[in-house]
Amino acid sequence: LIIIGGGEDREGEKTILRDVVRRSRRGKVVVATVATRDPEGYFEMYDRAFGELGVAEVVNLEIRTRCDALDQARLQALEGAAVIFFTGGDQLRITSQIGDTPVEWKLRALYESGCIVAGTSAGASAVCETMLVRGSGRESHRIGDVEMAPGLGFLQDVVIDQHFAQRGRMGRLLGVVAENPRVLGIGIDEDTAIIVENEARFEVLGTGAVYVVDGGGVTQSNIADERTDSVLSIYDVRLHVLSSEDRFLLPTRRPEQVPVIPEALPTAEAAAVAGGE
Amino acid sequence: LIIIGGGEDREGEKTILRDVVRRSRRGKVVVATVATRDPEGYFEMYDRAFGELGVAEVVNLEIRTRCDALDQARLQALEGAAVIFFTGGDQLRITSQIGDTPVEWKLRALYESGCIVAGTSAGASAVCETMLVRGSGRESHRIGDVEMAPGLGFLQDVVIDQHFAQRGRMGRLLGVVAENPRVLGIGIDEDTAIIVENEARFEVLGTGAVYVVDGGGVTQSNIADERTDSVLSIYDVRLHVLSSEDRFLLPTRRPEQVPVIPEALPTAEAAAVAGGE
Repeated sequence: LIIIGGGEDREGEKTILRDVVRRSRRGKVVVATVATRDPEGYFEMYDRAFGELGVAEVVNLEIRTRCDALDQARLQALEGAAVIFFTGGDQLRITSQIGDTPVEWKLRALYESGCIVAGTSAGASAVCETMLVRGSGRESHRIGDVEMAPGLGFLQDVVIDQHFAQRGRMGRLLGVVAENPRVLGIGIDEDTAIIVENEARFEVLGTGAVYVVDGGGVTQSNIADERTDSVLSIYDVRLHVLSSEDRFLLPTRRPEQVPVIPEALPTAEAAAVAGGE
Repeated sequence: LIIIGGGEDREGEKTILRDVVRRSRRGKVVVATVATRDPEGYFEMYDRAFGELGVAEVVNLEIRTRCDALDQARLQALEGAAVIFFTGGDQLRITSQIGDTPVEWKLRALYESGCIVAGTSAGASAVCETMLVRGSGRESHRIGDVEMAPGLGFLQDVVIDQHFAQRGRMGRLLGVVAENPRVLGIGIDEDTAIIVENEARFEVLGTGAVYVVDGGGVTQSNIADERTDSVLSIYDVRLHVLSSEDRFLLPTRRPEQVPVIPEALPTAEAAAVAGGE
């Protein structure tokens, strides 16, 4: 599961998309453009980017209506996918169009058999159990000023927010975590991704940061006491900011540094070291 | 000490300015326009606002050059002030123009004898021991991407940032706290203020929130290891978000709710309660 905060580099180094391709061994990429109203435009952009990264087969999973998600031809397009890549757009389009359809069942089966599911921006929000749908940026959270909806459910106990620092979304993510500290809030910057392995841990990739908002130790908040529109008050949030040398263990909610693997020594030196000389 | 996050209401309810006036019992207000390049414009605005709130005497402490701060007439303007109000502008203008001048000495003497010192925006940054001068908003902090300078020093062990949620400044405040967790980071939203009493505790006033970033429990950060421009990584920051029903105790770094004072009962009822009947 690869969750991208939007705005990933598609023309330069393409660090994140390159990593997606590397992990899938250049296998077939299905670009799921269901979130967007411009599926052709998005598909062209990703077709070019993945093509430049050496992927031979890139197909467009274009679903404009819920009927499309019942279509046999689209199910066949998914066959043999190594990557399903959800583009940006509107996360509610993803879940309302494919939720509980043969396309969703097929996606889940592919994921369970090892296919990479990746999502950026709206696609990032949609992959979790609960997704953030709407809420203000660039201001502090006001109670009631956030909307959530059931997501695709590939990752439990987590709510993702994207374009995080760029759109000043700390307030709304705190609002979500205040509502139920069972969910961990994960805010992902643009051109930044988390690579989730076994639903148990993630690493960070890209040029920005990932914010983990852990409400487990919260001692007080006014989320349930106050009327709508009051400013959120919350005490004792634990916050971690992670960059590309960090990883995070979900079951224990602990960050740690990615161990540095020492570079292999040149052979002669290695022999000398081995020989104690 | 009243520290305002900028953009306080000057035309409507004027909640914050009204509180400044109430606390000073409508005494003389000195508007220190030293931070701005438009002292007349700022003075007119505050002169009108304080006038509407019933203040009889509002004077402009206009200091365009460092020589002005040595001027006897300006010292006389300060005489009898109940409030010194620092406007927005550039915080470096405040400290570079009045630092270690008779005007500053007089300000300090007034503060020590009970005069209210208030600052908004640049004026808010300038009142503490160390002030934030520059740093990016709306992105995650990159190491080295923040500049600080010595402030006026009315409050120790604290760094203030203003326009906080509005300009997405969580990243840069985390950057400051990472550099030395001895300082507590306090981010104040627009139209929001902290009222600091005895340099020991503060209450929150206004329509936004106040963010307290406590790095005391930080277990790891890359601030000193990494080269400039790396994205900041920091674990275990304690974050409190406070609204107008909260206060904060600086020595223990603990938030708490402002006790609700029950409204006075109507006399008959009060008598009945008192009589046990």
